[in-house]
Amino acid sequence: MTFSSPAASATALPFKVRDLSLAEAGRHQIRLAENEMPGLMALRAEFGESQPLAGARIAGSLHMTVQTAVLIETLVALGAQVRWASCNIFSTQDEAAAAIAVGPTGTVDAPAGAPIFAWKGETLEEYWECAEQIFDWTAEAAAAGADWTGPNMILDDGGDATLLVHNGRSYELAGAVPETADDESHEGRVVLDLLRRSLATSTDRWTKIAEEIQGVTEETTTGVHRLYELFRNNELRFPAINVNDSVTKSKFDNKYGIRHSLPDGLNRATDVLIGGKVAFVVGYGDVGKGAAEALRGQGARVIVSEVDPICALQAAMDGYQVAKLESVVDQVDIFVSGTGNLNVITTEHMLNMKHLAIVANVGHFDNEIDMAGLEKIEGAERVEIKPQVHEWRLPNGRSILVLSEGRLMNLGNATGHPSFVMSNSFTNQVLAQIELYAHRENYPVGVYVLPKHLDEKVARLHLDALGVELTRLSEEQAAYIGVSVDGPYKVDHYRY
Amino acid sequence: MTFSSPAASATALPFKVRDLSLAEAGRHQIRLAENEMPGLMALRAEFGESQPLAGARIAGSLHMTVQTAVLIETLVALGAQVRWASCNIFSTQDEAAAAIAVGPTGTVDAPAGAPIFAWKGETLEEYWECAEQIFDWTAEAAAAGADWTGPNMILDDGGDATLLVHNGRSYELAGAVPETADDESHEGRVVLDLLRRSLATSTDRWTKIAEEIQGVTEETTTGVHRLYELFRNNELRFPAINVNDSVTKSKFDNKYGIRHSLPDGLNRATDVLIGGKVAFVVGYGDVGKGAAEALRGQGARVIVSEVDPICALQAAMDGYQVAKLESVVDQVDIFVSGTGNLNVITTEHMLNMKHLAIVANVGHFDNEIDMAGLEKIEGAERVEIKPQVHEWRLPNGRSILVLSEGRLMNLGNATGHPSFVMSNSFTNQVLAQIELYAHRENYPVGVYVLPKHLDEKVARLHLDALGVELTRLSEEQAAYIGVSVDGPYKVDHYRY
Amino acid sequence: MTFSSPAASATALPFKVRDLSLAEAGRHQIRLAENEMPGLMALRAEFGESQPLAGARIAGSLHMTVQTAVLIETLVALGAQVRWASCNIFSTQDEAAAAIAVGPTGTVDAPAGAPIFAWKGETLEEYWECAEQIFDWTAEAAAAGADWTGPNMILDDGGDATLLVHNGRSYELAGAVPETADDESHEGRVVLDLLRRSLATSTDRWTKIAEEIQGVTEETTTGVHRLYELFRNNELRFPAINVNDSVTKSKFDNKYGIRHSLPDGLNRATDVLIGGKVAFVVGYGDVGKGAAEALRGQGARVIVSEVDPICALQAAMDGYQVAKLESVVDQVDIFVSGTGNLNVITTEHMLNMKHLAIVANVGHFDNEIDMAGLEKIEGAERVEIKPQVHEWRLPNGRSILVLSEGRLMNLGNATGHPSFVMSNSFTNQVLAQIELYAHRENYPVGVYVLPKHLDEKVARLHLDALGVELTRLSEEQAAYIGVSVDGPYKVDHYRY
Amino acid sequence: MTFSSPAASATALPFKVRDLSLAEAGRHQIRLAENEMPGLMALRAEFGESQPLAGARIAGSLHMTVQTAVLIETLVALGAQVRWASCNIFSTQDEAAAAIAVGPTGTVDAPAGAPIFAWKGETLEEYWECAEQIFDWTAEAAAAGADWTGPNMILDDGGDATLLVHNGRSYELAGAVPETADDESHEGRVVLDLLRRSLATSTDRWTKIAEEIQGVTEETTTGVHRLYELFRNNELRFPAINVNDSVTKSKFDNKYGIRHSLPDGLNRATDVLIGGKVAFVVGYGDVGKGAAEALRGQGARVIVSEVDPICALQAAMDGYQVAKLESVVDQVDIFVSGTGNLNVITTEHMLNMKHLAIVANVGHFDNEIDMAGLEKIEGAERVEIKPQVHEWRLPNGRSILVLSEGRLMNLGNATGHPSFVMSNSFTNQVLAQIELYAHRENYPVGVYVLPKHLDEKVARLHLDALGVELTRLSEEQAAYIGVSVDGPYKVDHYRY
Repeated sequence: MTFSSPAASATALPFKVRDLSLAEAGRHQIRLAENEMPGLMALRAEFGESQPLAGARIAGSLHMTVQTAVLIETLVALGAQVRWASCNIFSTQDEAAAAIAVGPTGTVDAPAGAPIFAWKGETLEEYWECAEQIFDWTAEAAAAGADWTGPNMILDDGGDATLLVHNGRSYELAGAVPETADDESHEGRVVLDLLRRSLATSTDRWTKIAEEIQGVTEETTTGVHRLYELFRNNELRFPAINVNDSVTKSKFDNKYGIRHSLPDGLNRATDVLIGGKVAFVVGYGDVGKGAAEALRGQGARVIVSEVDPICALQAAMDGYQVAKLESVVDQVDIFVSGTGNLNVITTEHMLNMKHLAIVANVGHFDNEIDMAGLEKIEGAERVEIKPQVHEWRLPNGRSILVLSEGRLMNLGNATGHPSFVMSNSFTNQVLAQIELYAHRENYPVGVYVLPKHLDEKVARLHLDALGVELTRLSEEQAAYIGVSVDGPYKVDHYRY
Repeated sequence: MTFSSPAASATALPFKVRDLSLAEAGRHQIRLAENEMPGLMALRAEFGESQPLAGARIAGSLHMTVQTAVLIETLVALGAQVRWASCNIFSTQDEAAAAIAVGPTGTVDAPAGAPIFAWKGETLEEYWECAEQIFDWTAEAAAAGADWTGPNMILDDGGDATLLVHNGRSYELAGAVPETADDESHEGRVVLDLLRRSLATSTDRWTKIAEEIQGVTEETTTGVHRLYELFRNNELRFPAINVNDSVTKSKFDNKYGIRHSLPDGLNRATDVLIGGKVAFVVGYGDVGKGAAEALRGQGARVIVSEVDPICALQAAMDGYQVAKLESVVDQVDIFVSGTGNLNVITTEHMLNMKHLAIVANVGHFDNEIDMAGLEKIEGAERVEIKPQVHEWRLPNGRSILVLSEGRLMNLGNATGHPSFVMSNSFTNQVLAQIELYAHRENYPVGVYVLPKHLDEKVARLHLDALGVELTRLSEEQAAYIGVSVDGPYKVDHYRY
Repeated sequence: MTFSSPAASATALPFKVRDLSLAEAGRHQIRLAENEMPGLMALRAEFGESQPLAGARIAGSLHMTVQTAVLIETLVALGAQVRWASCNIFSTQDEAAAAIAVGPTGTVDAPAGAPIFAWKGETLEEYWECAEQIFDWTAEAAAAGADWTGPNMILDDGGDATLLVHNGRSYELAGAVPETADDESHEGRVVLDLLRRSLATSTDRWTKIAEEIQGVTEETTTGVHRLYELFRNNELRFPAINVNDSVTKSKFDNKYGIRHSLPDGLNRATDVLIGGKVAFVVGYGDVGKGAAEALRGQGARVIVSEVDPICALQAAMDGYQVAKLESVVDQVDIFVSGTGNLNVITTEHMLNMKHLAIVANVGHFDNEIDMAGLEKIEGAERVEIKPQVHEWRLPNGRSILVLSEGRLMNLGNATGHPSFVMSNSFTNQVLAQIELYAHRENYPVGVYVLPKHLDEKVARLHLDALGVELTRLSEEQAAYIGVSVDGPYKVDHYRY
Repeated sequence: MTFSSPAASATALPFKVRDLSLAEAGRHQIRLAENEMPGLMALRAEFGESQPLAGARIAGSLHMTVQTAVLIETLVALGAQVRWASCNIFSTQDEAAAAIAVGPTGTVDAPAGAPIFAWKGETLEEYWECAEQIFDWTAEAAAAGADWTGPNMILDDGGDATLLVHNGRSYELAGAVPETADDESHEGRVVLDLLRRSLATSTDRWTKIAEEIQGVTEETTTGVHRLYELFRNNELRFPAINVNDSVTKSKFDNKYGIRHSLPDGLNRATDVLIGGKVAFVVGYGDVGKGAAEALRGQGARVIVSEVDPICALQAAMDGYQVAKLESVVDQVDIFVSGTGNLNVITTEHMLNMKHLAIVANVGHFDNEIDMAGLEKIEGAERVEIKPQVHEWRLPNGRSILVLSEGRLMNLGNATGHPSFVMSNSFTNQVLAQIELYAHRENYPVGVYVLPKHLDEKVARLHLDALGVELTRLSEEQAAYIGVSVDGPYKVDHYRY
């Protein structure tokens, strides 16, 4: 791994990306992505002048893709400064990272963009070092002659940045980082080591950062889950907006994003015909619904498993067979997990799969598939077919194909959700950043969703690009159903 | 119209149905429907012995169909007494009404069933007289030697029964029924006349009834809307359970029910090939989603209109053209309204439609389509093709086909939602009746939805019939996502 | 059964229909159907003046539905005389039969239409008497002062009319009708008896008829199969056009017609929710493809069986499970046969079905389902739920629901293919009648399909009604692919 | 471009590929592809011992992909020798080419595979030199001590190999290569130059080759079209089998292959969300049907254009809008051509497209889209976004994205049809090679399709892999429909 050194430019802040020469290709892709992200471009037009994020110092931890590049440049266009890391070791698109580091007005020799710490294929150690970097604003403080030490906002995906602040502060208060347990995961050890080193250097670094932060906007189910838990336990230190549960996020990103990127990842990874195959989708939430629709749309026969009887009934009413994985495991060609839970595909399942069955996770962490268990099977051998595609030769003489080492394969094997989907999510993110930064007074410490009129606004900003003609209520009609002509149009519990 | 006179049986209560000789056919259909209503049959098995509804006197106002017959007999099996009217002048299935009046153990000559007041094709006057009948429990009181005058529970669909009680009581308190306004609708006049007659007879009839009622369970969006309004205005007199917003109701009845019964109604009414046609669906809520899916499933090209940008974006992402009705009105063969709003299809729209375009309402009242306006078009002529199918010859030389006189065509031209769908809705109804009757103490006056574990229970009771295998969470998995192994599995705001 | 007697009108020819008072309703339906049969209406416009069928005397044997009414009136508009019977004992729509008997200019008291011999629910004896009637043109001959005895054209569906002529002639040549074998079917006996009576009256009636006939146009796979067999055995007496194998017939009527009328028949017969159910489609030809698409479009899970590996592979590639019926029989809710073969659903299958499983045939004769075997099961009991819907209570304690007594349920339980589909088939029929009658010299005895340019013409006449814009080849493009700008556009073996 | 030099191995024949070190990756992919190509593997099992292709010298001209690698090794396993070139300048997968050159038993240092002449990104000059190489069997002849000069079989895709032989021979007979016309295309010039050089060296080289060749098996519509033309003009020199028109080729490769590889190519090229977009498919043959299904399956709204009224009517019945391209050009986000014709997307169309509309060809040559015209638009500028993805900046200020320079984008931007689809096509190819080589006596010069029982065999060999259970006809059933229990099951004109 070689890093581009930041050029000795007066304006450039330090950064770490793979290869700055990729910046030109990245810039092309950003330009094309802008055409697919009408929500973000509309916010630049609406707020470019008023600069509602002027003064905001955003620590961003979110997959460093081309789409995130458009998000970053939107935040900057609205007045913010950012430091950015990816939230997944495989998800960075190196050309996007390079383009952001170089910036729209910089050059490879004189980069003038934002400080990015991300590359495709980080080790866990590198990953957490990058995460730490987004909290180190000493260079920016020096340039501004300011005495703050860190960011005043977090934009998070999965909650790792938020966790670092909360755990760091908590260990500082306790005066020590806890002992590493014997059964601690590799990643757990890395984090403890990092915070141990931090504590050795400063006893109040994270405490001060926690105080400076006005709020966090969180992208995912997993991160939101952590936030609600912190809040329930009275441990949350700043208000949070749950971007994940905006309709225009959860029902779009999760469903339509996966519908797009699941077959894309399968194709890039394996080139296996999906048509005619038996596919098994674990979980029929929004992710599972999108996955099942995509697979059926390619001519696969889809079987679904569920633990929730309501979702199970939905799957049946949508025409899918609903079965336990173990009941049909030997008939399935493609396994897709989309649950947000752990061990939904077990080693026992894997040992009973067809030869060269494909195992793909689009749900959550790599523990959805029991990768740890797989590694421990005696006699199992891992053969790299190509990066992110591994044949596991099992002692039963059969092999299975595991994508992205059990992590999110739509990121690892494809390029993640496409721009248009991310434009919905990220327009929510920007609106949420504005809410917490510019209207902080409205948000005592707690976890919030965006108000419905902003959710509807996000949708509204994406209609023209699709040629959608929206009908307008008459005053009489609005009165009849008891809403304003301009919305919001639905009660809060409406399910869409 | 001739009615069967109640036989001079000791046990029989008075009723009014079209023809008791239809009872045998109705009984066959009830038996078949029971096979399709596993939720209700499971409740009979679970609660048949404990009789949680013993003592409940339910005034039911809900389409008197074969499925409602299974609901009624389930309520009775759980201990309740009922009196029943339909909630729509066209929706009664006369053989079901007859079978319930005769009862499972009665005969045509000695009916021993429940008192039913319903037939297909009531006039508005007859309709409201039937509605009044379900509140007259003097015969039952006499038989029981009791001094109550009316029911102690309402099971309502659309809120007409609830409205009668609330308005009746309010006029009694005021001492007078208001003058009928000049522009009052026909139906409004009928109701005012009825309550005027009532007030002439008794000054506290509805007041007493309102006091005796422990609660109402309401089936529909429209009725729920009225309940929330009453509650907001401090006018609600007893607690209400909003059955409509159970997931297993709104997302099943509205979506999957319409998916089934819309094409069924179109076919029975017109026999027109749906494939290849251009269909326009007004509204992309649950009803519109089911309608669009059904029409596409039959090979139609579907265009959708929406006022809510989120639903509009969903329609686009599901592959439908989204346009204003006026933009494409002259290309459309089949119009379907599913909004719950008024005048979504206007006379101007109708005057611009293709010759013999079909106009069908599956949303709500007959004012979704401007029927009143249509009747007022000078030179427009109405030709009955067959019952519930009318050709309107317009002065422009073209005709349109209006189904069910603009009322719900899935009830008027077909047989409403099929049994399996209604089993979901009605299992919610029965559980809601049990909640309000047997656990009244938990429900101060207000409007409630069923707790999620009961919603999940409804789904669970319908899985076996579809061959669905439900997966069970391990303790470890349940802990990981912070739920109980037995559910509920989702946060309250989860959208499914 | 009471028949309308033909009025003592000078112009009326004898006919037999159920009730002439249904004529007005039938006329409304015919008018509406004309709007859905643009192909036939275009032929009336194109050929109304030139009268290419002047002098044609057509013996028609085809389901006497509203659509056939439009066909009959188109044939008449092109100059033909007709006599008509249905080709199925259940398929007549009595109002259509009445309307044709009355004719567009006649009245119930003075019918002036065509001689029709058809009503819903004929006995087999009545059916074949009706078939015989279409060959008795003595009244017409008398009116015309002509010496012919029968028709000069046959328009056939299933081949019964053609069979009667060929067998009648053959027995006349032999001088005797063969003995009825002990195991002869009921229908076989009826036909032999009829021809025995005929031979007793005349020894050359069918021989003369066979000589007078210029050709037959045949609608169905089954009839076409019989024609090829006759031709192979050198027994065919006149040329035949195989209308069934026009693309615009087999790929439209079979696929899109069944897609429409299968769920329609299921709904009218049973009102059972299709969504969520397991449906089994026997055969994945055009009929099976349409059936599977319709059931999936309603949310059923569809399993298919096939004997042809190519069709089986198509079914798999289209996402369906492909299994033997016996492998999954106990999981299936709805069975649909569409093969054209016999005993594809056997008594053994039926004895292993779920309680109240539905058994429906859309393929062919009632022997697709082993109805004869079902009747012979000891202890099996048949309960009529309503006409064409029978519960068979089996000795195993379970019941099954058999639709239309095993005959074509889309005709018996619904109203057959819708008008638009039949407009395609019948436009082929009319063009085929014109070919054989007006261009007889081009057709030596044999079995033909319509030339491709006529097949394309049929399609072309149906595009405007659907708002289809057809693209026109440039001369350069036509030359590049070696076709004429006006078509035909494909090689004969093109599969569409 | 650097080539691997053939190693100085005794066994190795000369070849030209990009980089032999890719062979290991290619070998992995071949092994995985074998699992997806059950038809070819079954033929190895069935014919490996009998060696029906022993003595066959096959000149192969077909995309040098991983799937073709499995085909080549199947041909070799059946006894054949091969020399191979790609039939498209962009379609070679370099790792597959390398793996075949190295062979399963060879090494990079001692390659022992087949002589391959193919790499991704050939110039037209290189392309035709490679094509020439597959006819130069002097090394093989020398090794065998034989006096033949070239192959005795051709396996062709698009007809280039066949054209070279026929034109070469014809110019030899004429004694001269014609003058190159002024308006001759670049490719036309290259071919004429090549044959001019050839004629300068030998006056009978192609004549002898033509004599030695026993037959050609042709893969594509385009190649088949050329063959029928040669045959009609009495110019065809050896029999040909039209593999393209096997049902298991045209209805599988064209439809299901495109369904898979079209979205794959769009995704790899652009990462643009397909859902919600307006896609336009030019042509609704098998390719168009697969394209439309894939795009709809991803949530796009699909509009189709057609010149053939039958296909247009099919598109409408399948629920698609059918319009002329010019009528809707400004609403479309993604254009897909699949016609086999020329200039179906014109420069005028391109000048009216939305900004950054995507233009993709899956039909045929790069003249489907008027690339030549595009290049001539004054002021148009071509910017490479990445290989095979070009932004064309138009003088109107808008850009369009052209994939694969207008050539087949499913090959250029993705990896072509997936293995399972190609297994069907290639099993037909192998059976066709066996027919023409081992049963030459049955095939006088002409163009043939494979007999139906072989077509059915191809399907049969692919069922097990998909878990398909095939039903077997009883003797009684087979007799009833007049077929053998073992097939073939359909008449030749059956359309599937």
